[in-house]
Amino acid sequence: MTREEVRDLSLRRKDEKGLTWEELGKAIGKSPIYTAMLLYGYGQATEEEAKTLTSILELPEDAIKALMRAAYRTPSQPWPPTDPFVYRFYEIVLLYMPAIKDVAHELFGDGIMSAIDMSIDLKKVEDPSGTRMLISFNGKWLSYRKF
Amino acid sequence: MTREEVRDLSLRRKDEKGLTWEELGKAIGKSPIYTAMLLYGYGQATEEEAKTLTSILELPEDAIKALMRAAYRTPSQPWPPTDPFVYRFYEIVLLYMPAIKDVAHELFGDGIMSAIDMSIDLKKVEDPSGTRMLISFNGKWLSYRKF
Amino acid sequence: MTREEVRDLSLRRKDEKGLTWEELGKAIGKSPIYTAMLLYGYGQATEEEAKTLTSILELPEDAIKALMRAAYRTPSQPWPPTDPFVYRFYEIVLLYMPAIKDVAHELFGDGIMSAIDMSIDLKKVEDPSGTRMLISFNGKWLSYRKF
Amino acid sequence: MTREEVRDLSLRRKDEKGLTWEELGKAIGKSPIYTAMLLYGYGQATEEEAKTLTSILELPEDAIKALMRAAYRTPSQPWPPTDPFVYRFYEIVLLYMPAIKDVAHELFGDGIMSAIDMSIDLKKVEDPSGTRMLISFNGKWLSYRKF
Amino acid sequence: MTREEVRDLSLRRKDEKGLTWEELGKAIGKSPIYTAMLLYGYGQATEEEAKTLTSILELPEDAIKALMRAAYRTPSQPWPPTDPFVYRFYEIVLLYMPAIKDVAHELFGDGIMSAIDMSIDLKKVEDPSGTRMLISFNGKWLSYRKF
Amino acid sequence: MTREEVRDLSLRRKDEKGLTWEELGKAIGKSPIYTAMLLYGYGQATEEEAKTLTSILELPEDAIKALMRAAYRTPSQPWPPTDPFVYRFYEIVLLYMPAIKDVAHELFGDGIMSAIDMSIDLKKVEDPSGTRMLISFNGKWLSYRKF
Amino acid sequence: MTREEVRDLSLRRKDEKGLTWEELGKAIGKSPIYTAMLLYGYGQATEEEAKTLTSILELPEDAIKALMRAAYRTPSQPWPPTDPFVYRFYEIVLLYMPAIKDVAHELFGDGIMSAIDMSIDLKKVEDPSGTRMLISFNGKWLSYRKF
Amino acid sequence: MTREEVRDLSLRRKDEKGLTWEELGKAIGKSPIYTAMLLYGYGQATEEEAKTLTSILELPEDAIKALMRAAYRTPSQPWPPTDPFVYRFYEIVLLYMPAIKDVAHELFGDGIMSAIDMSIDLKKVEDPSGTRMLISFNGKWLSYRKF
Amino acid sequence: MTREEVRDLSLRRKDEKGLTWEELGKAIGKSPIYTAMLLYGYGQATEEEAKTLTSILELPEDAIKALMRAAYRTPSQPWPPTDPFVYRFYEIVLLYMPAIKDVAHELFGDGIMSAIDMSIDLKKVEDPSGTRMLISFNGKWLSYRKF
Amino acid sequence: MTREEVRDLSLRRKDEKGLTWEELGKAIGKSPIYTAMLLYGYGQATEEEAKTLTSILELPEDAIKALMRAAYRTPSQPWPPTDPFVYRFYEIVLLYMPAIKDVAHELFGDGIMSAIDMSIDLKKVEDPSGTRMLISFNGKWLSYRKF
Repeated sequence: MTREEVRDLSLRRKDEKGLTWEELGKAIGKSPIYTAMLLYGYGQATEEEAKTLTSILELPEDAIKALMRAAYRTPSQPWPPTDPFVYRFYEIVLLYMPAIKDVAHELFGDGIMSAIDMSIDLKKVEDPSGTRMLISFNGKWLSYRKF
Repeated sequence: MTREEVRDLSLRRKDEKGLTWEELGKAIGKSPIYTAMLLYGYGQATEEEAKTLTSILELPEDAIKALMRAAYRTPSQPWPPTDPFVYRFYEIVLLYMPAIKDVAHELFGDGIMSAIDMSIDLKKVEDPSGTRMLISFNGKWLSYRKF
Repeated sequence: MTREEVRDLSLRRKDEKGLTWEELGKAIGKSPIYTAMLLYGYGQATEEEAKTLTSILELPEDAIKALMRAAYRTPSQPWPPTDPFVYRFYEIVLLYMPAIKDVAHELFGDGIMSAIDMSIDLKKVEDPSGTRMLISFNGKWLSYRKF
Repeated sequence: MTREEVRDLSLRRKDEKGLTWEELGKAIGKSPIYTAMLLYGYGQATEEEAKTLTSILELPEDAIKALMRAAYRTPSQPWPPTDPFVYRFYEIVLLYMPAIKDVAHELFGDGIMSAIDMSIDLKKVEDPSGTRMLISFNGKWLSYRKF
Repeated sequence: MTREEVRDLSLRRKDEKGLTWEELGKAIGKSPIYTAMLLYGYGQATEEEAKTLTSILELPEDAIKALMRAAYRTPSQPWPPTDPFVYRFYEIVLLYMPAIKDVAHELFGDGIMSAIDMSIDLKKVEDPSGTRMLISFNGKWLSYRKF
Repeated sequence: MTREEVRDLSLRRKDEKGLTWEELGKAIGKSPIYTAMLLYGYGQATEEEAKTLTSILELPEDAIKALMRAAYRTPSQPWPPTDPFVYRFYEIVLLYMPAIKDVAHELFGDGIMSAIDMSIDLKKVEDPSGTRMLISFNGKWLSYRKF
Repeated sequence: MTREEVRDLSLRRKDEKGLTWEELGKAIGKSPIYTAMLLYGYGQATEEEAKTLTSILELPEDAIKALMRAAYRTPSQPWPPTDPFVYRFYEIVLLYMPAIKDVAHELFGDGIMSAIDMSIDLKKVEDPSGTRMLISFNGKWLSYRKF
Repeated sequence: MTREEVRDLSLRRKDEKGLTWEELGKAIGKSPIYTAMLLYGYGQATEEEAKTLTSILELPEDAIKALMRAAYRTPSQPWPPTDPFVYRFYEIVLLYMPAIKDVAHELFGDGIMSAIDMSIDLKKVEDPSGTRMLISFNGKWLSYRKF
Repeated sequence: MTREEVRDLSLRRKDEKGLTWEELGKAIGKSPIYTAMLLYGYGQATEEEAKTLTSILELPEDAIKALMRAAYRTPSQPWPPTDPFVYRFYEIVLLYMPAIKDVAHELFGDGIMSAIDMSIDLKKVEDPSGTRMLISFNGKWLSYRKF
Repeated sequence: MTREEVRDLSLRRKDEKGLTWEELGKAIGKSPIYTAMLLYGYGQATEEEAKTLTSILELPEDAIKALMRAAYRTPSQPWPPTDPFVYRFYEIVLLYMPAIKDVAHELFGDGIMSAIDMSIDLKKVEDPSGTRMLISFNGKWLSYRKF
């Protein structure tokens, strides 16, 4: 099975069984976001994780091997993004990142936030003016090497 | 003055005077990120903010009016982004957003996080395995209207 | 079923049964435009709407679930648009929007018209110089947040 | 003078004099939107309109001739649009136009709404749930010719 | 049937039966060009035209309905065009249209030639220096509306 | 002088002197369209044509040499075209050319209409249903060589 | 059969039978290059050529008709080219053509080398410093028409 | 001086002095094509070549150093090419190169024709059916290395 | 079989049999990288290599012929690359190559490193600050030819 | 001074003074490649490095500050690359990286080679078959974080 086939089948099974990312995450001891990333094809499952997910979602046997492979990461969406949920983040990177980068260099000097050694957190916050979404990215700071 | 001219001049003056975003932010009672966004051209200053910034950075008089205009927001960078700091966020949106969107709809139903009624927070976190950068986006949740 | 499969099948069935958007809209108590948007894949049906549409159009059972999901919104057309009906609106956004934006900021200050909390209305108007089409967009005004 | 030079100078002068589109529109007996379109370079002024605008905005003499020329219409913005105000309309055309087109053909048969013989109207509407923006496009319906 | 399926099948049948556009055009009382446009998917047939073409080309019954629908017009070729026949016209639009537009505005004032209310004519002309192709476009002139 | 400089200066002078393409064409014994093409940079003037145009438009001496050079032909417009006059022809090539090509091959066999050995004609036609524009392209037919 | 199907099948058969372009060319009295172009879909075979090729390659009967049609010429490769053999020629056109054009106009005046009435020749040349490839293009010179 | 400045100035001087590529080539003992490539910025002159060209064209002293540098090779034209002379070669690479590559591999096995160790030749050929242009590329054959 | 089919099947078989590139490389006496390139479709196998690989991986008989063909080299990935492993190298070429080129010309004069007569080497290096990857490219230097 | 101004001036001065990257590198105790990257705008100089380079190259005083800033990294070349030296590396990433990635994951598991904590080495190697260029990239291996 390819990672794309695992993704498509996983999402269909999750839907049919009425499972949530919360529940799938608990089953493997990971956050809902990471679990979704794993099934969408952006992570390398341990054998245990692969077996648990394959069993809960009743995927075929070879999904285990597929989930344990280091995948070629390709987007599961058209690009530039057309979905309004995704586009708003694209807009943030397009417009505000140079300003954010400038403030970050003030704090850290030259370098980048790693998108590899990084975790993501998503929360729902109730506020007098209405519900808000709070999303955080936490990544290792890497400095440029001199040689 | 155009917003681009205000940006270029502000950044040069900030550099010459050795001012930080932290200090500029304090002067107008806003966060360093928002202050940077304002001077990069992505916000509409109140008269007081505009006057304070113009005075601290010794900008010409008409910078006040320029800072108070609703600007046409264009990126201050090439696109797709070439700078590694910015690209890593582009990569996150490109690869992981559909998985994040999926988890978000589980929490909120159909809709989006507004990129207009939104704030941004940036922190430096020391960790045994090295320094980490933590960035958060906090936006109003908007549901699709039926009609 | 994917949302694309629901769209294709719905359009074929609507055609075969000779149903109009007007009639489908009435059946679920929504406007013809919104009803078309729903079946094209750009809305999240309530259970009642999904069941009614599935029954009228004789779609398979799992169309109900599909119609109730928050979909990834992708265009159902090539882009840039090639159809003359659609291109004319693309041309309007391409050429006239900066002028419109300028007038809007005069009325509202800095911000945007939401394309999420928004409704659309379409009318045929007879005029001495010939038939005219009148289309209106009505969206919530959102102001940029300061922080 | 080119139309671009007329635009840049007009906008600066309008700003300096604190004039509104409302006021400029009244001066030439046209709507604020049309007046903005004219100065942005998307219309052909009559001699009277050209003279009135040139005089109010204190433009140089040859602005009159420039305003009366049929211009090559080029966008006064980057494309695809980056400004959130404009992008939201781009998103509407990208996602919802095929559904709207489908409803329109039900009302009108095959053809298009002209973007040439067309007028635009913009209104601010107060609503219990907050301010809303209402924008309408009114264009001649054109049917395809057979031959 | 989709319009694309009608096109593919029509072209195959026309080929097998050795029919010419000239002959098909005569059968429905239209020009060869318009007839080709209709079957390529760029026109809305009357019931009579649809029935005649379906019968001559021995298409399945539902081709009639398909031919009578207002289609979404998409190109039946890659773009930019790669075929030398088509590319030469693309080159003409790319290079010479601004000069032609300039002359046209001298004759007509500001406006456009409609590509909707338009007919096309194609002729073979023998000339001492060799065969020549003569193609003409005849479209309604539309003036921009003021409002 | 570059051809672009000749173009810009010629158009300004033509405007100031109130000359038409009709008049300029008569002066060199060519059609208005060809004359416009020449000054826009898409033709190689004979010495006589170059001198006459330079003299009527009061261009500097070295415009003569520039007009007599074989130019690198680049578009004098953005691409894809944004002006509605030009876009309508782009739309015709995009949508209808494969159908036209098909009819042309029926008349001529395999080959192309040359866009080099080609002339263009533009006319205004009054019709009961309103003014119409008629434009024709007349080019040598070239057959593919076998070898 | 489409031209693409003829191409795919021809190449497979040629491979299975161990035929060379040299041999196929001899069979129809054409050069190896032209013969390859014909089967790749870039030429219109005479009835005799079509029958000979169909027979040697044991193609189905309707390949004859397909080979005799004037095809829509589309590239049989991704674009820009990714194969190093093809890219080197792309690089030549990208970098050196303006210099070559300049020299050509010195020899020929304004005009172009036709890519329609053109033949191609390919040779292997042994040289002390190693094997070399020699490729030549021979095309009719076309001068721009005045009108 | 940059290579672009050398190019622009050289072309202007060559024009003013009425020099041909033929003559410039003779002066440095190279072909007209190579000489044009050198001045357009696509070659590294020896000291002698640089001095001779600088002297004949009366370029400033530092043109010598500029001509002797290994340049970053960028196109001196828009891309894809718009000039008909250049486009015809682009079309040849786009359409016919896969067929040519196929024949070349029959002669040479896997590999490429170098575009670095390569020479170009251009000739005018008179033919009963009219003037023809003959252009040849002669490059070293490189085989892929195994390791 | 096409080279793409050989690639897909080879990778699946390698996975099922638990073979490594190291082992496959040893079997044909080549490096792991070259062996991977061969199966991905970027090399021309000798008959012996083709037979050995086909036998170990239990591919069908005609894989032998396919592996021995000179393939059209197309990327086996989307482009620009989306996978973070690949993107980092893309970033290096995008940002640092002009600086590297500059240093290379200091060492070698004008010319290029061949990507045809080239080998690649990949190593894992343990370092006190963590594991490092070391990759080297070794290619023949080619100088530009004068003519 | 911007980083681009520092680059342009540095390169001119280096040229005029006949300095090599080797010599500049020695002056700051870094490799020639890193030194070139620094002046091209892809590194953050220490105060000492900035002062030494500014003094050797006789740059204005504020080059020191500019060299010490964390720059926005943009390419100093068109993209995709047109220079043959650079393109060959682009071709390597385009074609061979997926195969290399596959071998790398066999050695390292899932992750990437950092392009931030990375050094580059360039050597000239004499070989019986001619001069060769050897270039190596040495980067920290980063594994994906689980969360």
